Amino acid sequence: MSGASPAAEALPTVTSVYRCKVAWGECDPAGIIFYPTYFHWFDSATWQLFAHVGLPMLRLLADGNMMPLVAADIRFHNPAKPGDECEVRTRIERWGGKSFVVAHDVYRADGELLATGTETRVWICKLEGVTGPMTAQTIPAELKARFCAK
Amino acid sequence: MSGASPAAEALPTVTSVYRCKVAWGECDPAGIIFYPTYFHWFDSATWQLFAHVGLPMLRLLADGNMMPLVAADIRFHNPAKPGDECEVRTRIERWGGKSFVVAHDVYRADGELLATGTETRVWICKLEGVTGPMTAQTIPAELKARFCAK
Amino acid sequence: MSGASPAAEALPTVTSVYRCKVAWGECDPAGIIFYPTYFHWFDSATWQLFAHVGLPMLRLLADGNMMPLVAADIRFHNPAKPGDECEVRTRIERWGGKSFVVAHDVYRADGELLATGTETRVWICKLEGVTGPMTAQTIPAELKARFCAK
Amino acid sequence: MSGASPAAEALPTVTSVYRCKVAWGECDPAGIIFYPTYFHWFDSATWQLFAHVGLPMLRLLADGNMMPLVAADIRFHNPAKPGDECEVRTRIERWGGKSFVVAHDVYRADGELLATGTETRVWICKLEGVTGPMTAQTIPAELKARFCAK
Repeated sequence: MSGASPAAEALPTVTSVYRCKVAWGECDPAGIIFYPTYFHWFDSATWQLFAHVGLPMLRLLADGNMMPLVAADIRFHNPAKPGDECEVRTRIERWGGKSFVVAHDVYRADGELLATGTETRVWICKLEGVTGPMTAQTIPAELKARFCAK
Repeated sequence: MSGASPAAEALPTVTSVYRCKVAWGECDPAGIIFYPTYFHWFDSATWQLFAHVGLPMLRLLADGNMMPLVAADIRFHNPAKPGDECEVRTRIERWGGKSFVVAHDVYRADGELLATGTETRVWICKLEGVTGPMTAQTIPAELKARFCAK
Repeated sequence: MSGASPAAEALPTVTSVYRCKVAWGECDPAGIIFYPTYFHWFDSATWQLFAHVGLPMLRLLADGNMMPLVAADIRFHNPAKPGDECEVRTRIERWGGKSFVVAHDVYRADGELLATGTETRVWICKLEGVTGPMTAQTIPAELKARFCAK
Repeated sequence: MSGASPAAEALPTVTSVYRCKVAWGECDPAGIIFYPTYFHWFDSATWQLFAHVGLPMLRLLADGNMMPLVAADIRFHNPAKPGDECEVRTRIERWGGKSFVVAHDVYRADGELLATGTETRVWICKLEGVTGPMTAQTIPAELKARFCAK
């Protein structure tokens, strides 16, 4: 840990919790969760993390902000079953200049870890009336600061 | 049939076919299709019907046209299973002044009827830059004419 | 109301509430909810109604009970948007001998009615080890009694 | 390439193609594909690869075989839009003793690369009547041989 910057150590990150329940229709004929379901949860959990720090979806959209993905991954530890109560614990794992990594840990209500994954997203501010390809922009320091746990 | 108008009898309607295969992830732990899947197919089949008469999705969107639903229904005749090859046969069942009914019949490749349903939609032309609630508009005769089988 | 049977009036039915939030990924490029989403909610809301009267999904499955659909319908009153908090109020609308109708009303948190619909389902008890087509069975009076509001 | 084994070079792998079209309901309010959709396609593409080598879904299920995932990942290169015709090119990227990696490349009809990803799965043969946790099994050489291009 000697290489870690003091600043980073001084800034623990906010974690938000997205609660969900495995729906009958989210499970497959093997009787367990159909795995893309986790990514549906990840996306909702990321929006919730931003709402948690004062940036709900409607405000982001009104401001022209979007967070398209450049990559995502997941590891499956235990299969979720129909009716399982779950929670996704979400936090920013790493900030880049124009991109950031969101980490998600999915736990069943009894504490069992079901899956862990990340989404790598870029930050975009799309001005009204502007069409054409969107390009990633430098993430404002003000935005990053919102995710520092008090 | 004596009450049917000569005009209506003279205008058989176009039918288009949307082909699909029941995915593993569209089935539930009972091992049969999760029923909302049919409505996903219905929506795609309606877009395809419009493409079939010369109005592909991109043109409709470019022209500001949308077809939001006011109602939908379905009856299930036989359960689809994972891997079943299916086709949705779609046609306009009825034209109103501002709304229309799309009828869908879902068949398995062996000819078995799986489900039948309808979507009732309204016709909207959203002008660019105009915000606020959308209201249904009178369906142009030119549009209706496209769906008359030659 | 003079035609209503005394028995029916004496047995108000249980209503359960399924809470949900319109996810970003449940909305389409028009910026409103993609309509099959409501049927995903309806299915979850029906399972929740049964859980509410003491029959959670895992017990139903362990007992070999299933409730496949024979029909469903919906009417759309107002479009839900990304992030809208909603609730589905669910009750048994009608009992038949072997089938029953579940009614769902979807409200936004501000009280606006978004959609109303029904599912018609049949009651099945699949004995372990028995294969072949499932047939609907007479619904036990004990089951119906669970849904009478105290 | 000097380190590659002669055996590996002698065994080019089979590639199958899964064709799909981006549905209206698979896109989000940003007007592009909702990213978990790609994983729905990946799962279908894997089943299709197995069908391509003579192991269709129904035979796998009848034999008690399943291929649950231990990991998955994706990189996004270009956003798919409503109505885009796409194809997923799928092959086995690596065989382990009990696990294997399936690689998926998603192309738009005009040849543009949209996304690339992998699924890591384990091989299971669940004997009828046996309950309890499933464990990964050694992948038979006969299975691996099916995926060698002639």
